[in-house]
Amino acid sequence: MGKNRLEAFSDGVIAIIITIMVLELKVPHSPDFRALLPLWPVFMSYVLSFVYVGIYWNNHHHMLHAVKEVSGGVLWANLHLLFWLSLIPFVTGWMGENHFETGPTAAYGFVLLMCAAAYSILARRLVVNHEKNAMLAEAIGDDRKGKISIVLYLVGAGLSWWAAWLGFVVYAAVAVMWLIPDRRIEEKVIEEIEQEEAANDKQP
Amino acid sequence: MGKNRLEAFSDGVIAIIITIMVLELKVPHSPDFRALLPLWPVFMSYVLSFVYVGIYWNNHHHMLHAVKEVSGGVLWANLHLLFWLSLIPFVTGWMGENHFETGPTAAYGFVLLMCAAAYSILARRLVVNHEKNAMLAEAIGDDRKGKISIVLYLVGAGLSWWAAWLGFVVYAAVAVMWLIPDRRIEEKVIEEIEQEEAANDKQP
Amino acid sequence: MGKNRLEAFSDGVIAIIITIMVLELKVPHSPDFRALLPLWPVFMSYVLSFVYVGIYWNNHHHMLHAVKEVSGGVLWANLHLLFWLSLIPFVTGWMGENHFETGPTAAYGFVLLMCAAAYSILARRLVVNHEKNAMLAEAIGDDRKGKISIVLYLVGAGLSWWAAWLGFVVYAAVAVMWLIPDRRIEEKVIEEIEQEEAANDKQP
Amino acid sequence: MGKNRLEAFSDGVIAIIITIMVLELKVPHSPDFRALLPLWPVFMSYVLSFVYVGIYWNNHHHMLHAVKEVSGGVLWANLHLLFWLSLIPFVTGWMGENHFETGPTAAYGFVLLMCAAAYSILARRLVVNHEKNAMLAEAIGDDRKGKISIVLYLVGAGLSWWAAWLGFVVYAAVAVMWLIPDRRIEEKVIEEIEQEEAANDKQP
Repeated sequence: MGKNRLEAFSDGVIAIIITIMVLELKVPHSPDFRALLPLWPVFMSYVLSFVYVGIYWNNHHHMLHAVKEVSGGVLWANLHLLFWLSLIPFVTGWMGENHFETGPTAAYGFVLLMCAAAYSILARRLVVNHEKNAMLAEAIGDDRKGKISIVLYLVGAGLSWWAAWLGFVVYAAVAVMWLIPDRRIEEKVIEEIEQEEAANDKQP
Repeated sequence: MGKNRLEAFSDGVIAIIITIMVLELKVPHSPDFRALLPLWPVFMSYVLSFVYVGIYWNNHHHMLHAVKEVSGGVLWANLHLLFWLSLIPFVTGWMGENHFETGPTAAYGFVLLMCAAAYSILARRLVVNHEKNAMLAEAIGDDRKGKISIVLYLVGAGLSWWAAWLGFVVYAAVAVMWLIPDRRIEEKVIEEIEQEEAANDKQP
Repeated sequence: MGKNRLEAFSDGVIAIIITIMVLELKVPHSPDFRALLPLWPVFMSYVLSFVYVGIYWNNHHHMLHAVKEVSGGVLWANLHLLFWLSLIPFVTGWMGENHFETGPTAAYGFVLLMCAAAYSILARRLVVNHEKNAMLAEAIGDDRKGKISIVLYLVGAGLSWWAAWLGFVVYAAVAVMWLIPDRRIEEKVIEEIEQEEAANDKQP
Repeated sequence: MGKNRLEAFSDGVIAIIITIMVLELKVPHSPDFRALLPLWPVFMSYVLSFVYVGIYWNNHHHMLHAVKEVSGGVLWANLHLLFWLSLIPFVTGWMGENHFETGPTAAYGFVLLMCAAAYSILARRLVVNHEKNAMLAEAIGDDRKGKISIVLYLVGAGLSWWAAWLGFVVYAAVAVMWLIPDRRIEEKVIEEIEQEEAANDKQP
């Protein structure tokens, strides 16, 4: 099975998820600038979720770049990831509308946690199906960032019982950690290409 | 006519269908976790419909993989399928908001039935246009799963007059039946490729 | 400029237009089947508009199939078409919600008219840019169907002042006229290919 | 990294942005034509924003046409641009619903300003990553139009404190300036191709 339609479908779903979140920013009925003030928590949640969905798209892009075909299992692991991503607009709206109170902030962390777990399942599925693809296996590697994220989501969701804004700060910190670009796969790809080229040079 | 734009357009429509369903999950105004409780029927319908739309995308992907070009008739058979799929968000919302009462649950079954019928028409259209494509014809074959589904949708819609949750259980069972991946086409493709390779090996 | 992104973007916009129309089918709050009755005019408009947008996608697909590259002018003529198509959900909703009264039915006809005009401008733009592409020029030809449609939209909009349902009937008749597939371009393509093949056969 | 998925994802997001704006055109409950009158400011904002998003898609298309691969930095610069574009439906709705009063009109100008800045950052990022791509560097050049636009957005936002409709006029004027197609890159591409061909002709 080619990976092209999987990429196209995932791009479509992720593009819609990232865009419908802005519908939660309800147009105020007053033309006054002060009418925007009550919207700032919704706006803050929107920014954070936009960055998160962007990170997932980015990493998804990189990971699938390293494979050539996908199995039925991968299709379903991918749909499972898209399912949890599709809940981000809901928890974003809930968190924003309730000014980062405990319940919604913890729920937001829970959905981030499930997304991370789904992404990790997808990554493992891909590794299983591409046992010989040393590049992919090595590149995903021990997935240290992914494991740290899962712990931090739990910490954030826990802290939001104590003070909800702390949960938000932790989630934002995880996003910043991911924004430092994940060069692992990129480097592996470059390395691999260089090795291949070196091998080709020797072959005359 | 190339099949690429047909796939791209179908992917777009299916991606939107699968994503706008989440808009039925209305953000609660209270930050309390208990505010999520009334949402569980909507959430359950969302999960079921997400799985169904995922199954259709998956099977659509597999079926079109086996063909190379499409006729005008196929374009319209495909739009007919997309039309019935586009009604899934409506019946999902109706079923979820009314806690699986008789009317909405039977209507949900009816739309699933029409989707299955439209899919079957599309499959037959493709077979007619690719008479020589033994792979496709054999792969779609007697379409046993499709026929069983149609019967079960009728059973489910009927049972929902007696007890609506029974209808939901039947629809969920059909989805599980489809989740067991439809390896028919995949296997045929692999077989075909192997035979071709064998034939090529003999040719020199 | 390649035509691929133009096709991809148009597919995206058309896919969204065709799908968001279903959001006008508001989920009834009652589980009773009779709650669906007041929705039938909305549903009828949805079906008609779905078919219309499907026809535009179909014809757009065929027309662009005959060209290889697009100019800046074509990009804008295409956006102009997409603009008028994007108003279809609005007039569909208005017509459906008001049970085919005069105003909305005439407005629906007006938007169909503008879509037809925009499509015709796009077709002419493509012909200008592909003067040597005899296939395209001949294939679009005198565009008899397009001209008849424009006249019938005017007739339909006019009749809706007398009896609005008559307008709807006329619009539906135009759609049926288009559903009889537009084999002109398809035939030209096939002819062209055959001529080329014949020419190639002679060449050795 | 290939640029194809970046283009596909951007096309998806831009297609959704351009289409969901029409949802702000709320269907009137009365079938009277006069019920459309109060919608004209919303409609005017919709037209202007449709043209703006179209211009961005168009220029984005042209700029990416001149490059072959994209880095991680470009992916993020592109997401940054999409973020500001995604706010256009919000300010469009706000400006339209409030009949071009000062606050919303100034906010509209601010979002246009941020889009222009984000586009400029993306362009610069691409130039940095393609130092040897003289075509791209030269083509983007001094970006005179971009700089004039930023000044005019500031002027428009400023004027809207004095008379809000003046702000709208200035924004519309900037759009018209951009509608005069940006032939710079197109010309460069053609020139480059001609030079390459000339070079190839000499190479025997």
